[in-house]
Amino acid sequence: MNEIKIKNLSIISNNKGDILKGFLKSENKEFDVKEVYLSEINPKEIKAWKMHKEMTSNLIAVKGEVKIVIQTIDKNFISEIISKKNYKMITIPPNIWFGFQCISDDSGLLINISNKEHEDLESKDIEIDKIKFDWN
Amino acid sequence: MNEIKIKNLSIISNNKGDILKGFLKSENKEFDVKEVYLSEINPKEIKAWKMHKEMTSNLIAVKGEVKIVIQTIDKNFISEIISKKNYKMITIPPNIWFGFQCISDDSGLLINISNKEHEDLESKDIEIDKIKFDWN
Repeated sequence: MNEIKIKNLSIISNNKGDILKGFLKSENKEFDVKEVYLSEINPKEIKAWKMHKEMTSNLIAVKGEVKIVIQTIDKNFISEIISKKNYKMITIPPNIWFGFQCISDDSGLLINISNKEHEDLESKDIEIDKIKFDWN
Repeated sequence: MNEIKIKNLSIISNNKGDILKGFLKSENKEFDVKEVYLSEINPKEIKAWKMHKEMTSNLIAVKGEVKIVIQTIDKNFISEIISKKNYKMITIPPNIWFGFQCISDDSGLLINISNKEHEDLESKDIEIDKIKFDWN
Protein backbone atom coordinates (compact mmCIF):
# COMPACT_ATOMS: atom_id res chain seq x y z
CA MET A 1 0.00 0.00 0.00
CA ASN A 2 3.00 2.30 0.35
CA GLU A 3 4.00 2.59 -3.27
CA ILE A 4 3.47 5.21 -5.89
CA LYS A 5 1.45 3.51 -8.64
CA ILE A 6 0.42 4.62 -12.10
CA LYS A 7 -2.31 2.41 -13.52
CA ASN A 8 -3.87 2.52 -16.97
CA LEU A 9 -7.64 2.75 -16.83
CA SER A 10 -9.96 1.65 -19.60
CA ILE A 11 -12.56 3.62 -21.51
CA ILE A 12 -15.61 1.88 -22.94
CA SER A 13 -16.70 3.74 -26.07
CA ASN A 14 -20.38 4.52 -26.45
CA ASN A 15 -21.98 6.76 -29.04
CA LYS A 16 -24.14 8.48 -26.39
CA GLY A 17 -21.14 9.05 -24.11
CA ASP A 18 -18.25 6.89 -22.97
CA ILE A 19 -17.89 4.96 -19.73
CA LEU A 20 -14.60 5.73 -17.99
CA LYS A 21 -13.53 3.07 -15.54
CA GLY A 22 -11.90 4.14 -12.28
CA PHE A 23 -11.40 2.59 -8.86
CA LEU A 24 -12.27 -1.08 -8.27
CA LYS A 25 -12.23 -2.55 -4.78
CA SER A 26 -11.28 -5.98 -6.20
CA GLU A 27 -8.03 -4.46 -7.50
CA ASN A 28 -7.41 -2.52 -4.26
CA LYS A 29 -8.48 -5.02 -1.61
CA GLU A 30 -6.61 -3.31 1.24
CA PHE A 31 -8.08 0.08 0.42
CA ASP A 32 -11.27 1.21 2.18
CA VAL A 33 -12.68 4.30 0.51
CA LYS A 34 -13.49 6.97 3.10
CA GLU A 35 -13.89 10.02 0.89
CA VAL A 36 -14.32 10.89 -2.78
CA TYR A 37 -13.83 14.58 -3.62
CA LEU A 38 -12.68 16.76 -6.49
CA SER A 39 -9.91 19.28 -6.85
CA GLU A 40 -10.16 21.84 -9.63
CA ILE A 41 -7.02 23.50 -10.98
CA ASN A 42 -7.57 26.69 -12.92
CA PRO A 43 -5.73 27.13 -16.25
CA LYS A 44 -1.96 27.66 -15.78
CA GLU A 45 -2.24 27.38 -12.00
CA ILE A 46 -0.06 25.12 -9.87
CA LYS A 47 -1.17 23.65 -6.55
CA ALA A 48 2.07 22.59 -4.83
CA TRP A 49 3.46 21.27 -2.55
CA LYS A 50 1.23 19.07 -0.41
CA MET A 51 1.92 16.02 1.73
CA HIS A 52 -0.56 13.83 3.55
CA LYS A 53 0.48 12.25 6.81
CA GLU A 54 -1.92 9.30 6.65
CA MET A 55 -4.02 9.54 3.50
CA THR A 56 -3.33 7.58 0.34
CA SER A 57 -4.76 9.42 -2.67
CA ASN A 58 -5.96 7.82 -5.90
CA LEU A 59 -6.11 10.55 -8.53
CA ILE A 60 -7.95 10.50 -11.85
CA ALA A 61 -8.16 13.50 -14.22
CA VAL A 62 -11.76 13.84 -15.36
CA LYS A 63 -11.48 17.18 -17.13
CA GLY A 64 -8.60 19.05 -18.76
CA GLU A 65 -4.97 18.01 -18.68
CA VAL A 66 -3.21 17.92 -15.33
CA LYS A 67 0.49 17.40 -14.69
CA ILE A 68 1.00 15.44 -11.48
CA VAL A 69 4.46 15.83 -9.96
CA ILE A 70 5.59 13.54 -7.16
CA GLN A 71 8.88 13.74 -5.28
CA THR A 72 10.16 10.23 -4.61
CA ILE A 73 11.92 9.27 -1.37
CA ASP A 74 15.31 9.45 -3.14
CA LYS A 75 14.49 13.08 -4.15
CA ASN A 76 13.81 12.35 -7.81
CA PHE A 77 10.56 13.32 -9.47
CA ILE A 78 7.82 11.39 -11.18
CA SER A 79 5.85 13.60 -13.53
CA GLU A 80 2.88 12.50 -15.61
CA ILE A 81 0.30 14.46 -17.57
CA ILE A 82 -3.07 12.79 -17.12
CA SER A 83 -6.30 13.47 -18.98
CA LYS A 84 -8.94 11.48 -20.86
CA LYS A 85 -6.32 11.06 -23.61
CA ASN A 86 -3.78 9.57 -21.17
CA TYR A 87 -6.32 8.00 -18.87
CA LYS A 88 -4.73 6.70 -15.67
CA MET A 89 -5.11 6.49 -11.92
CA ILE A 90 -2.13 7.68 -9.90
CA THR A 91 -1.78 6.39 -6.34
CA ILE A 92 0.19 8.57 -3.93
CA PRO A 93 0.91 7.11 -0.48
CA PRO A 94 1.33 9.31 2.62
CA ASN A 95 4.56 11.16 3.46
CA ILE A 96 5.29 12.07 -0.16
CA TRP A 97 5.36 15.64 -1.50
CA PHE A 98 3.29 16.21 -4.62
CA GLY A 99 1.71 18.94 -6.69
CA PHE A 100 -0.65 19.55 -9.62
CA GLN A 101 -0.44 21.88 -12.60
CA CYS A 102 -3.23 22.56 -15.08
CA ILE A 103 -1.70 22.59 -18.55
CA SER A 104 -4.90 22.81 -20.62
CA ASP A 105 -6.75 25.98 -21.62
CA ASP A 106 -9.80 24.82 -19.71
CA SER A 107 -9.61 24.05 -16.02
CA GLY A 108 -8.38 20.66 -14.84
CA LEU A 109 -10.38 18.49 -12.50
CA LEU A 110 -9.03 15.61 -10.42
CA ILE A 111 -11.03 13.05 -8.49
CA ASN A 112 -9.35 11.99 -5.29
CA ILE A 113 -10.48 8.61 -3.97
CA SER A 114 -8.95 8.42 -0.51
CA ASN A 115 -8.78 6.20 2.56
CA LYS A 116 -9.04 9.06 5.10
CA GLU A 117 -11.62 11.79 5.41
CA HIS A 118 -10.24 15.31 5.15
CA GLU A 119 -8.90 16.84 8.38
CA ASP A 120 -7.07 20.15 8.38
CA LEU A 121 -4.09 18.87 10.36
CA GLU A 122 -3.68 15.66 8.38
CA SER A 123 -1.88 17.37 5.50
CA LYS A 124 0.99 19.83 5.22
CA ASP A 125 1.58 22.51 2.61
CA ILE A 126 4.84 24.23 1.75
CA GLU A 127 5.57 27.04 -0.70
CA ILE A 128 6.29 26.01 -4.26
CA ASP A 129 9.91 27.28 -4.14
CA LYS A 130 10.79 25.02 -1.19
CA ILE A 131 11.22 22.08 -3.56
CA LYS A 132 12.98 22.96 -6.80
CA PHE A 133 11.26 21.55 -9.86
CA ASP A 134 11.12 22.88 -13.41
CA TRP A 135 7.36 23.14 -13.99
CA ASN A 136 7.74 24.36 -17.60
CA MET B 1 -30.19 2.43 2.42
CA ASN B 2 -33.20 1.92 0.16
CA GLU B 3 -34.22 5.49 -0.35
CA ILE B 4 -33.73 7.97 -3.14
CA LYS B 5 -31.72 10.81 -1.63
CA ILE B 6 -30.71 14.21 -2.94
CA LYS B 7 -27.98 15.78 -0.83
CA ASN B 8 -26.43 19.22 -1.17
CA LEU B 9 -22.67 19.08 -1.41
CA SER B 10 -20.35 21.92 -0.51
CA ILE B 11 -17.78 23.72 -2.60
CA ILE B 12 -14.72 25.28 -0.96
CA SER B 13 -13.65 28.30 -3.02
CA ASN B 14 -9.97 28.64 -3.83
CA ASN B 15 -8.39 31.09 -6.26
CA LYS B 16 -6.23 28.34 -7.81
CA GLY B 17 -9.22 26.04 -8.21
CA ASP B 18 -12.10 25.01 -5.99
CA ILE B 19 -12.43 21.88 -3.86
CA LEU B 20 -15.72 20.10 -4.49
CA LYS B 21 -16.77 17.81 -1.68
CA GLY B 22 -18.38 14.48 -2.54
CA PHE B 23 -18.85 11.16 -0.77
CA LEU B 24 -17.97 10.81 2.91
CA LYS B 25 -17.98 7.42 4.61
CA SER B 26 -18.92 9.05 7.95
CA GLU B 27 -22.18 10.23 6.36
CA ASN B 28 -22.79 6.88 4.64
CA LYS B 29 -21.71 4.40 7.30
CA GLU B 30 -23.56 1.42 5.79
CA PHE B 31 -22.10 2.05 2.35
CA ASP B 32 -18.92 0.24 1.31
CA VAL B 33 -17.54 1.70 -1.90
CA LYS B 34 -16.73 -1.04 -4.39
CA GLU B 35 -16.37 0.98 -7.59
CA VAL B 36 -15.95 4.59 -8.69
CA TYR B 37 -16.46 5.18 -12.43
CA LEU B 38 -17.64 7.91 -14.77
CA SER B 39 -20.42 8.11 -17.30
CA GLU B 40 -20.19 10.72 -20.01
CA ILE B 41 -23.36 11.95 -21.74
CA ASN B 42 -22.82 13.70 -25.06
CA PRO B 43 -24.70 16.97 -25.69
CA LYS B 44 -28.46 16.46 -26.18
CA GLU B 45 -28.16 12.71 -25.67
CA ILE B 46 -30.31 10.69 -23.27
CA LYS B 47 -29.17 7.49 -21.60
CA ALA B 48 -32.39 5.80 -20.42
CA TRP B 49 -33.75 3.62 -18.96
CA LYS B 50 -31.52 1.64 -16.65
CA MET B 51 -32.17 -0.31 -13.45
CA HIS B 52 -29.68 -1.98 -11.16
CA LYS B 53 -30.70 -5.15 -9.36
CA GLU B 54 -28.28 -4.80 -6.46
CA MET B 55 -26.20 -1.65 -6.89
CA THR B 56 -26.90 1.62 -5.14
CA SER B 57 -25.50 4.53 -7.17
CA ASN B 58 -24.30 7.85 -5.79
CA LEU B 59 -24.19 10.30 -8.67
CA ILE B 60 -22.37 13.64 -8.84
CA ALA B 61 -22.18 15.81 -11.98
CA VAL B 62 -18.59 16.94 -12.39
CA LYS B 63 -18.89 18.50 -15.85
CA GLY B 64 -21.78 20.00 -17.81
CA GLU B 65 -25.41 19.96 -16.75
CA VAL B 66 -27.16 16.62 -16.44
CA LYS B 67 -30.85 15.98 -15.87
CA ILE B 68 -31.33 12.90 -13.71
CA VAL B 69 -34.79 11.35 -13.99
CA ILE B 70 -35.89 8.68 -11.52
CA GLN B 71 -39.16 6.78 -11.59
CA THR B 72 -40.43 6.31 -8.04
CA ILE B 73 -42.16 3.13 -6.87
CA ASP B 74 -45.56 4.88 -7.13
CA LYS B 75 -44.76 5.67 -10.83
CA ASN B 76 -44.10 9.36 -10.33
CA PHE B 77 -40.87 10.98 -11.42
CA ILE B 78 -38.13 12.82 -9.62
CA SER B 79 -36.19 15.05 -11.98
CA GLU B 80 -33.22 17.21 -11.02
CA ILE B 81 -30.67 19.05 -13.11
CA ILE B 82 -27.28 18.72 -11.44
CA SER B 83 -24.06 20.57 -12.24
CA LYS B 84 -21.42 22.56 -10.39
CA LYS B 85 -24.05 25.33 -10.11
CA ASN B 86 -26.56 22.97 -8.47
CA TYR B 87 -24.02 20.79 -6.78
CA LYS B 88 -25.59 17.66 -5.27
CA MET B 89 -25.18 13.94 -4.83
CA ILE B 90 -28.15 11.83 -5.88
CA THR B 91 -28.48 8.36 -4.37
CA ILE B 92 -30.45 5.80 -6.39
CA PRO B 93 -31.14 2.45 -4.71
CA PRO B 94 -31.56 -0.77 -6.70
CA ASN B 95 -34.79 -1.74 -8.49
CA ILE B 96 -35.54 1.79 -9.63
CA TRP B 97 -35.63 2.92 -13.27
CA PHE B 98 -33.58 6.00 -14.04
CA GLY B 99 -32.04 7.91 -16.90
CA PHE B 100 -29.69 10.80 -17.71
CA GLN B 101 -29.92 13.64 -20.21
CA CYS B 102 -27.16 16.08 -21.05
CA ILE B 103 -28.71 19.53 -21.30
CA SER B 104 -25.52 21.60 -21.65
CA ASP B 105 -23.69 22.41 -24.89
CA ASP B 106 -20.61 20.60 -23.63
CA SER B 107 -20.80 16.97 -22.62
CA GLY B 108 -22.00 16.00 -19.16
CA LEU B 109 -19.98 13.78 -16.87
CA LEU B 110 -21.31 11.89 -13.86
CA ILE B 111 -19.28 10.13 -11.19
CA ASN B 112 -20.93 7.00 -9.92
CA ILE B 113 -19.78 5.90 -6.47
CA SER B 114 -21.29 2.45 -6.06
CA ASN B 115 -21.43 -0.48 -3.65
CA LYS B 116 -21.17 -3.18 -6.35
CA GLU B 117 -18.62 -3.66 -9.07
CA HIS B 118 -20.00 -3.64 -12.58
CA GLU B 119 -21.32 -6.95 -13.90
CA ASP B 120 -23.17 -7.19 -17.19
CA LEU B 121 -26.13 -9.08 -15.78
CA GLU B 122 -26.53 -6.90 -12.69
CA SER B 123 -28.35 -4.14 -14.58
CA LYS B 124 -31.23 -4.04 -17.04
CA ASP B 125 -31.86 -1.60 -19.89
CA ILE B 126 -35.12 -0.87 -21.64
CA GLU B 127 -35.88 1.39 -24.59
CA ILE B 128 -36.64 5.00 -23.79
CA ASP B 129 -40.26 4.79 -25.03
CA LYS B 130 -41.10 1.99 -22.59
CA ILE B 131 -41.52 4.55 -19.79
CA LYS B 132 -43.32 7.70 -20.86
CA PHE B 133 -41.61 10.85 -19.66
CA ASP B 134 -41.48 14.32 -21.21
CA TRP B 135 -37.74 14.91 -21.51
CA ASN B 136 -38.15 18.44 -22.94
